Amino acid sequence: MASRQESSLPLRPKEQDPPEGQATSKSALKKAAKEKEKAEKAARRQEQERQQKEQAEASDTAKHLYGPLSLPSEPAASQEFTELADLYDAKEDQEVTLDARVHNARVQSTKLAFLVLREGPHTIQAVIAEGGAHKISRQMVKWSGGLNTESIVRVTGLVKQPLEPVTSTSISNYELHVASIYLISAAAQQLPIQVKDCMRPPPMGDEPTQAEEQAADGTPIVSLSARLNNRVLDARTAANNAIFQLQSGVSNLFIEYMNKHKFTWIQSSKIAGAATEGGAGVFEIKYFDTKAYLTQSPQFFKQMAIAMDMKRVCEIGPVFRAENSNTHRHLTEFTGLDFEMVIRNHYHEVLGFSERLLIFIIRALQTREEYKRLTKVVQQVYSEAGNFKLPPGDDAVRITFAEGVKLLNEAGIEAAELDDLSTAQERTLGTLISQKYSSDFFTMDKYPLAIRPFYTHPDPTSPHLSHSYDFFMRGQEIMSGAQRIHDYNTLCERMRASDPPLDPLGKGFKDYTDAFRYGCAPHGGGGIGLNRVVQFYLGLPDIRAATLFVRDPGRLAP
Amino acid sequence: MASRQESSLPLRPKEQDPPEGQATSKSALKKAAKEKEKAEKAARRQEQERQQKEQAEASDTAKHLYGPLSLPSEPAASQEFTELADLYDAKEDQEVTLDARVHNARVQSTKLAFLVLREGPHTIQAVIAEGGAHKISRQMVKWSGGLNTESIVRVTGLVKQPLEPVTSTSISNYELHVASIYLISAAAQQLPIQVKDCMRPPPMGDEPTQAEEQAADGTPIVSLSARLNNRVLDARTAANNAIFQLQSGVSNLFIEYMNKHKFTWIQSSKIAGAATEGGAGVFEIKYFDTKAYLTQSPQFFKQMAIAMDMKRVCEIGPVFRAENSNTHRHLTEFTGLDFEMVIRNHYHEVLGFSERLLIFIIRALQTREEYKRLTKVVQQVYSEAGNFKLPPGDDAVRITFAEGVKLLNEAGIEAAELDDLSTAQERTLGTLISQKYSSDFFTMDKYPLAIRPFYTHPDPTSPHLSHSYDFFMRGQEIMSGAQRIHDYNTLCERMRASDPPLDPLGKGFKDYTDAFRYGCAPHGGGGIGLNRVVQFYLGLPDIRAATLFVRDPGRLAP
Repeated sequence: MASRQESSLPLRPKEQDPPEGQATSKSALKKAAKEKEKAEKAARRQEQERQQKEQAEASDTAKHLYGPLSLPSEPAASQEFTELADLYDAKEDQEVTLDARVHNARVQSTKLAFLVLREGPHTIQAVIAEGGAHKISRQMVKWSGGLNTESIVRVTGLVKQPLEPVTSTSISNYELHVASIYLISAAAQQLPIQVKDCMRPPPMGDEPTQAEEQAADGTPIVSLSARLNNRVLDARTAANNAIFQLQSGVSNLFIEYMNKHKFTWIQSSKIAGAATEGGAGVFEIKYFDTKAYLTQSPQFFKQMAIAMDMKRVCEIGPVFRAENSNTHRHLTEFTGLDFEMVIRNHYHEVLGFSERLLIFIIRALQTREEYKRLTKVVQQVYSEAGNFKLPPGDDAVRITFAEGVKLLNEAGIEAAELDDLSTAQERTLGTLISQKYSSDFFTMDKYPLAIRPFYTHPDPTSPHLSHSYDFFMRGQEIMSGAQRIHDYNTLCERMRASDPPLDPLGKGFKDYTDAFRYGCAPHGGGGIGLNRVVQFYLGLPDIRAATLFVRDPGRLAP
Repeated sequence: MASRQESSLPLRPKEQDPPEGQATSKSALKKAAKEKEKAEKAARRQEQERQQKEQAEASDTAKHLYGPLSLPSEPAASQEFTELADLYDAKEDQEVTLDARVHNARVQSTKLAFLVLREGPHTIQAVIAEGGAHKISRQMVKWSGGLNTESIVRVTGLVKQPLEPVTSTSISNYELHVASIYLISAAAQQLPIQVKDCMRPPPMGDEPTQAEEQAADGTPIVSLSARLNNRVLDARTAANNAIFQLQSGVSNLFIEYMNKHKFTWIQSSKIAGAATEGGAGVFEIKYFDTKAYLTQSPQFFKQMAIAMDMKRVCEIGPVFRAENSNTHRHLTEFTGLDFEMVIRNHYHEVLGFSERLLIFIIRALQTREEYKRLTKVVQQVYSEAGNFKLPPGDDAVRITFAEGVKLLNEAGIEAAELDDLSTAQERTLGTLISQKYSSDFFTMDKYPLAIRPFYTHPDPTSPHLSHSYDFFMRGQEIMSGAQRIHDYNTLCERMRASDPPLDPLGKGFKDYTDAFRYGCAPHGGGGIGLNRVVQFYLGLPDIRAATLFVRDPGRLAP
């Protein structure tokens, strides 16, 4: 089990093809003679080249100082490596060894080559100069300057102050005088896109228009889809690297908060025996001799876990939506941060908890040094990244759905108290609230019952409303949550009253409804879209920018 | 997005069916008269019952002290709740309010009822006695003693020392003298299985034999499949609750270790556009107008993340295997704890890291108070739970595959140096090593190349061997790992030499192999089966016991 992927390889090489039938015709003989001559010529040329190379190598004073590197076959004594990030504060003449990408390479003359070495967001200029204490050869200069971009090298050298600050690298106060340089991994000469070009923001649409293919200064513009097609190159940019480290941060902050509040981390199944959402929007799986479906959320499982007396549960996992919508905020697969907890007296216990959770996450992104630094890196490409407004204090800006509608109406926008808001209305509301409360995060409580899923707890005092809420960042929904119905009979009633009606004893539902028939504590929870939190915290134009491997109706690779 | 599951409910009730056609025949008239009489009789009976009830209620001195509880519709002042776990150290006459399951209820007499209340692994006896300061009524006694098992109640009462210790509950030094008792959630009277019966271990086979259906003492034996069919009830037992808290613990310990070592937590896709494992063992998905597949591991994604310069990545996610094998350690869906990291000089860097990771996790399970307590709870049902042997120190017991084969041979078991071991051989090896080194955890390095996946790095000094390893707990594999090939040409060669040959430029492979064509650092990693770690740490007889919602070839629900 674990990640082993079985594959049996042959122990012996396969038998070779039988030799072809003998050629007997004249033209065949002539052809054979020609080929023989050709082969002899090639052999002579090869031999010549070998001799030249040998001579060059013999005269190469530095041949042990460069070339391809093979890792030692036995564990070696541990060697000390420096990270580029440490070189801002290096000392003059300090000797360092580091592994880095070749961001740029050029041969200045037979005696001098320059490299730009890159590691994450950091770059430094490396100088390979003939002569010196190490007797660097012209061959070494040529070889170094001819390295393909994106190759990985291991360089040892001395840190030196340049004559004047290097403006094209992030480390400008030092350059690296190379003593040895070995090739760990060679990149191909032709790359489909250049990492350099991915360092500028992608054009806003999914596909670049013709006009967009070249920017005003002549540099190529790489469309989002070209970037996603070549994600391995695209994700090497400092901004992308920072985005996915921040995403890792949000997962960690979520788990940190859940642990602090004694949640049990569960792993529910992503395969269900029935399409409980009515079949639309659900991916179907061939499951041996039957059909199964990918879950659209861990909702039923979380609630069953509450009925198991787990009290507080959380999960981080993939969520699948077979919706053929191609918007900047929809994917067919994304990561859900889900939680569910017992309510003692009133559902505002869980609403308040959810608000504090989001405030904890956003505040940590804004205040912890590591995340602040990463946000700044993103901001160099996506200018909105550092601008997320969150007022001080522990309380979220909370309005009711009715108040939200009123705010929109007052701004001259038609909206009705019992209809759902459109995405555009939500964005406008976000702007209004940002202006009024100086907060890019707000929560909206008491949604109309009719626009929420059947398991949403009705508001006992206002039967058209419900104990449910959505959370917004920059006017875009990032979380949905609610108190759930825990009374078996009420749940069955609501299911039968659904349009289309649902059968509480039907396939895929009976196990779920039984959980309440066996007694279940009042409870509520929510589901956060991880990719959306990252997208809207950083103000990224498209959710794909916050997704490492994108899946949408048109994309299944890489 | 997030967890919202769309469902539109009708705002207005549907129109009623038109009245049926008038009946005009004599027999119809007669029938109507009879029904009228019947209805009148029923009405009289109802009225009588109502009056009786009213009288009873009027004479009920305690009617405000019991009955169904509805949560307040507005947030109330926060109320203090006690957990059953706190009552072991309670004080005589302390007043407490708590929510608990009715584990057992009986009416002793018209004046006295006993309940056993349960919360997690803890139980206490509650006494409802007529009279006293609260003027408890006979109606209240009857109502309380008649509560259905598994119902959830909110009880306020005084903690009192019993005349003699209560032997049937976990809290024996105190009982609870009930002042009020409200019903939060009623369980059905008939439950498919009893939680009490699930507190004994399941029979070893998947299905109980006829002989197993009743144990020697007459108590019913509940088969594993009956438990899994009714997981919501089964998982309420203290042992099961502890198992899933320990599983949550392993996830947390994994992430804790990953954070300490600066891994980036990624979320890779579970949907792939091609069945890169050759189609066998892969679940097929209908993906709009095309086909897609569920990933069998995040292997390709993790390696691509390394090629993205993410350096150290980890993931916790579902892993899918469409294998029709019904063993005690195989599932079609389980949780993988995966990681991948750059290697600087030698792959023992990652092997050593992996060993220290597992030792960290096992040691924490054995030494942190919370996990020790949970393990003890499991041990009450699964006697092996507390017996996992791990010698002191930071080093794992590590042998090579060749040494493993030799150990087996010395014990008289046939095994060849270049063939894979069978599950039985691995278990025997586990026993031999446990005897020799007093460790139930060991690692085995340098597997034959031919039995490992194509991306496994060959051993440059012994071409039949590879830089790969498996980890074992109690002689069962819980992790596979290796150095991976990072050189594009070597990888392509190995793919072409596979049986059947794989096309490095083929669908599903090109994006993966391109990652190495664009330059990639040497790297390695591993994949841990979360469910297996829990299963074998605790010595559970079946992996299903360590899986909250089981998916196997025959199970898609709950």
